[in-house]
Amino acid sequence: MVSFENDYNAGAHPEVLRKLTETNLEPLSGYGTDPYCKSAREKIRRAVGLPEAQVDFLVGGTQANAVVISTMLADYEGVVAAETGHVSSHEAGAIEYTGHEVLTVPQKDGKMVPETLRRYLEAFFGDENHEHMTFPGMVYLSHPTEYGTLYSKAELTEISGICRGYGIPLFLDGARLGYGLMSRETDLTLPDIAQLCDVFYIGGTKVGALCGEAVVFTKGNRPAHFMTSVKRRGALLAKGRLLGVQFDALFTDDLYYRIGRHAIDMAEKMKAILEELGIPMYLDSPTNQQFVVLENGRLERLREQVAYSFWEKYDDDHTVVRLATSWATTEEDLEVLREALKRG
Amino acid sequence: MVSFENDYNAGAHPEVLRKLTETNLEPLSGYGTDPYCKSAREKIRRAVGLPEAQVDFLVGGTQANAVVISTMLADYEGVVAAETGHVSSHEAGAIEYTGHEVLTVPQKDGKMVPETLRRYLEAFFGDENHEHMTFPGMVYLSHPTEYGTLYSKAELTEISGICRGYGIPLFLDGARLGYGLMSRETDLTLPDIAQLCDVFYIGGTKVGALCGEAVVFTKGNRPAHFMTSVKRRGALLAKGRLLGVQFDALFTDDLYYRIGRHAIDMAEKMKAILEELGIPMYLDSPTNQQFVVLENGRLERLREQVAYSFWEKYDDDHTVVRLATSWATTEEDLEVLREALKRG
Amino acid sequence: MVSFENDYNAGAHPEVLRKLTETNLEPLSGYGTDPYCKSAREKIRRAVGLPEAQVDFLVGGTQANAVVISTMLADYEGVVAAETGHVSSHEAGAIEYTGHEVLTVPQKDGKMVPETLRRYLEAFFGDENHEHMTFPGMVYLSHPTEYGTLYSKAELTEISGICRGYGIPLFLDGARLGYGLMSRETDLTLPDIAQLCDVFYIGGTKVGALCGEAVVFTKGNRPAHFMTSVKRRGALLAKGRLLGVQFDALFTDDLYYRIGRHAIDMAEKMKAILEELGIPMYLDSPTNQQFVVLENGRLERLREQVAYSFWEKYDDDHTVVRLATSWATTEEDLEVLREALKRG
Amino acid sequence: MVSFENDYNAGAHPEVLRKLTETNLEPLSGYGTDPYCKSAREKIRRAVGLPEAQVDFLVGGTQANAVVISTMLADYEGVVAAETGHVSSHEAGAIEYTGHEVLTVPQKDGKMVPETLRRYLEAFFGDENHEHMTFPGMVYLSHPTEYGTLYSKAELTEISGICRGYGIPLFLDGARLGYGLMSRETDLTLPDIAQLCDVFYIGGTKVGALCGEAVVFTKGNRPAHFMTSVKRRGALLAKGRLLGVQFDALFTDDLYYRIGRHAIDMAEKMKAILEELGIPMYLDSPTNQQFVVLENGRLERLREQVAYSFWEKYDDDHTVVRLATSWATTEEDLEVLREALKRG
Repeated sequence: MVSFENDYNAGAHPEVLRKLTETNLEPLSGYGTDPYCKSAREKIRRAVGLPEAQVDFLVGGTQANAVVISTMLADYEGVVAAETGHVSSHEAGAIEYTGHEVLTVPQKDGKMVPETLRRYLEAFFGDENHEHMTFPGMVYLSHPTEYGTLYSKAELTEISGICRGYGIPLFLDGARLGYGLMSRETDLTLPDIAQLCDVFYIGGTKVGALCGEAVVFTKGNRPAHFMTSVKRRGALLAKGRLLGVQFDALFTDDLYYRIGRHAIDMAEKMKAILEELGIPMYLDSPTNQQFVVLENGRLERLREQVAYSFWEKYDDDHTVVRLATSWATTEEDLEVLREALKRG
Repeated sequence: MVSFENDYNAGAHPEVLRKLTETNLEPLSGYGTDPYCKSAREKIRRAVGLPEAQVDFLVGGTQANAVVISTMLADYEGVVAAETGHVSSHEAGAIEYTGHEVLTVPQKDGKMVPETLRRYLEAFFGDENHEHMTFPGMVYLSHPTEYGTLYSKAELTEISGICRGYGIPLFLDGARLGYGLMSRETDLTLPDIAQLCDVFYIGGTKVGALCGEAVVFTKGNRPAHFMTSVKRRGALLAKGRLLGVQFDALFTDDLYYRIGRHAIDMAEKMKAILEELGIPMYLDSPTNQQFVVLENGRLERLREQVAYSFWEKYDDDHTVVRLATSWATTEEDLEVLREALKRG
Repeated sequence: MVSFENDYNAGAHPEVLRKLTETNLEPLSGYGTDPYCKSAREKIRRAVGLPEAQVDFLVGGTQANAVVISTMLADYEGVVAAETGHVSSHEAGAIEYTGHEVLTVPQKDGKMVPETLRRYLEAFFGDENHEHMTFPGMVYLSHPTEYGTLYSKAELTEISGICRGYGIPLFLDGARLGYGLMSRETDLTLPDIAQLCDVFYIGGTKVGALCGEAVVFTKGNRPAHFMTSVKRRGALLAKGRLLGVQFDALFTDDLYYRIGRHAIDMAEKMKAILEELGIPMYLDSPTNQQFVVLENGRLERLREQVAYSFWEKYDDDHTVVRLATSWATTEEDLEVLREALKRG
Repeated sequence: MVSFENDYNAGAHPEVLRKLTETNLEPLSGYGTDPYCKSAREKIRRAVGLPEAQVDFLVGGTQANAVVISTMLADYEGVVAAETGHVSSHEAGAIEYTGHEVLTVPQKDGKMVPETLRRYLEAFFGDENHEHMTFPGMVYLSHPTEYGTLYSKAELTEISGICRGYGIPLFLDGARLGYGLMSRETDLTLPDIAQLCDVFYIGGTKVGALCGEAVVFTKGNRPAHFMTSVKRRGALLAKGRLLGVQFDALFTDDLYYRIGRHAIDMAEKMKAILEELGIPMYLDSPTNQQFVVLENGRLERLREQVAYSFWEKYDDDHTVVRLATSWATTEEDLEVLREALKRG
């Protein structure tokens, strides 16, 4: 049995785990004040190319989204997201729990289209008064998106420009950022993202850590007394070292990129296998999540050897499933997948 | 330099870390559905003596308090706590963030006095209508308390009876439960607590885990769709294994109790050293946290060799500090403390 | 200058004001416990045909929506509304402020289509687990809708049946209910609505009162300690008499219906004038709000004599405006409108 | 039967009601944009002596407290109040509902003592880090207090100075401000209050209006897009005229002060009667609320002729009751009270 169920089904990358083990007995101060958190912050500042960036570590993605959005929005503001954005429907109302509305706009391939955003903001901030409606106070993107797709540098630059024109911060959810950065089809680098966004996070949970997301405030715009706001949301870890040590490892010897590249390599090989077998893709994803359309009978048989994720019904006879790679995916896993699919 | 700063300054107990390492490469399903979570739940059910108990794993203590309180209270209810209770003032408003009031009552030695609670509830639910006030909807205790003190079986039984008389659930915060259970002065066992409380949690973060608290609903009273409520509070871990594996280790071969006992043994030796040196205790704590009164000059010198926690000013010349032991405390650490204090 | 700007631009209907004046000096107990509140509740119970209905008075529509929705939903639930529903976008995020998500479904003529709702609920409660999404916990309709349109008895019956099939309460926002009930094209009566809905409100603010909405719980399903929940939302009026006296007047001698009928009569005459002048309607509304498409130049001139509401741009040369009637609209007002429009 | 139950048991002062009647048929724009709201704002600005003050009208006191506090506090802040402050315990958790903590300090005669506040803030903002606690972000007073007592100009000046020293806004709840301003024992004027506070409100509900509180931001510090924040809290009145017309009347020909003075005159006469009859006061109140200690038997008999408010049990044989005067209290009412009490 092999698993392509998701990119968080294994534990930590061995280099991450090794560092946790090596540092385990050191007595360290709590709440993110230890030297590994400091070192990890410094390495991340270098990696994003902003010596003044402010970096905080949170435990998971939903938490990072809710904390960042709710601490940066004003009372009367909501966050604009694509209707397929993760915060729009797959967080069980975590943003609304903080009292804020998610303002949705139509999407294309899982992405927000710059022109759509421009028109939305023009309509709101145009001639008519909209004081009876929630103000758009932040734009949320994820990169990669829910469908594994990516923004081009031109697209992100345009969205960033629109946001700045209205004085609205741009927030990029990078839960799977490592796979976006290492995609063969991207022209966006980590420093580009840091330049273009006001805040973003570098996902650890889905890119080799046991848990952890590194939130980066790029413009000295970290909310005042952020630690207290984090604590009151139940999001402050006593043993902050757990996050600091892991991110310190992820940003040592390019581990974060190596993890991303390996998963991309595995995904590309998987795509070749699928093409070879004539299995149609649901959409064209350049990252580690591949969405394929399988006949239900075949799927039934596949289940015995391969773990995958149900995505949605395609038609009465077919299903869309997601196959994800990660640092833990091996060539042998791909062989098992090939043989299992071959059997038809 | 040795550290008695707190009981969460080291990483994980070696047996916990070993289990994380051994299971690291296994592909496991997420969100608490993996076999280690299942096994840990089963072991905890046996340890608490309730085959039907419902067990959920959360990441930290503030989170556990906020999630449990806010999912169990009705809209118009608040939680009753001692004025020194952890939720009353040291969680940065995490309970209020969920929209609920903490109703405080006077304390004695950090504990809620049964008679105080009884009078408080009698006054509220007595003759007069109090519809303009928050209803008491839960009673919160911690065991050990903020001051390391413990409830006796008689006290907890009385409080439990008062709560049941009013149909109000009793919630016990066991962030440091291991030290309470292994105290030489306690007559309360884990099954007692499970019998007397409606919900409680077994603290991992401060008792040998990297992170994690095991919430136990004792009466089939787990809130409906609890997982969704956990997720919308940003508290659902994708790699739920991180918590399951750790609690599975903590409840294998009595590790949880061994950790507790070791810390208690170290604390008792520390008390003997303090007594021998004539250093006054601020209060009499039977658990792993000891509160001592030190002359400021002595404290200044101590700082060079021993990490401790500032608690509060005692008078112009003296300070109350907390010295905590844990699984990681060694006899050598105590010797360093003794020598450092001796120097005066 | 005459006004068709909205249905709340005049004060109270003279019969309502007279009753306020007559009772002004009587000393009465507060918070809804006075005899006029009691009398109004009784009259409303008779009007809706449910002797056991529970009736509460709130001040305004946004408040009524937020209070009802947030006190009836479970923590993990959201409210399903048409994408054009009032709570979906025109309440400045008042529902989200209470921590709950508005789950939107497509609309037709401003209405929720029963089949759309059925499919939405089937998809959610079907085979797949959706614990990572907000549960649909209530269905929200308004009658009339934002566009002045009405549900037929068959439609409301079907929606009610779907809701009951899933055990989800049906909530009807009747901010303009009087106009719906008196429309010439409706087959829905107040007792029908009371039978088919779990909770609804009878709007006063827009139907002749200075302020006030009467919330009706039809099935003994008033949330426990509702008054306390109302108070903590800042929605409890000290001089509850202000609402009780007004609703007592509105439900004396059929005043509520007479107000509705007058406004409908005026709206029908307005439609005749518009048809006579060849002015196109934006949509066909059977209630007191009429939406017309006007050439921008004509609109510019109209503005000098007639107050209206901007609705939206139609195209570069035309605008959609709303013209509303109320108890205060007179035949003379209509004549001024006719002459103003005639001038072109 | 006469009523001294509270100061909101009658309807509106006749001059207020007359103005509502006179303006009833005028078509006016909604949400506080009508000319009466404008006029009332202007008159209030003159009365408080601040031409630049920003004035908003809200419906009731709990609502005003919750809206002001929650829109002015930062996320990590709470409001400091006396332990007997109205927001501390008699609002059913309305402040906590907005996600913020009420930080209580000890009181004297229902008032916050400047020195107590100074020490509290010094302790918080002193040497030690308190990032795990809620930050004090506003100071709340009421004037008169829950016990009818008043701050002197010296006391308010001192508290104001302490607040400014820490950059914390001072908020004064003036639900009964009219009675405070007209007390024979006060040296605080409305302009004094406007100078010393950052925000306060002039209570209407308890001082002659049907409903309504005028919130005054004194330093150009009205929160951005306040109207939207008011709306999302369900606190925006469609017929804003209801509040504007009433406050316009209250600030015409000194009506607000005349109402206050009449109630004070009646209260002073009541005190003379009580003294004459040898009935002990529970405390010395210089405003319209008088707290007396009555033997239970006498109270039982009093109940037949006089409505009062139960305050609290004094001892097994005595009860503290509140007797309140208002604009509607007459000499005849006082005679009835005298005779009823005389009977013993």
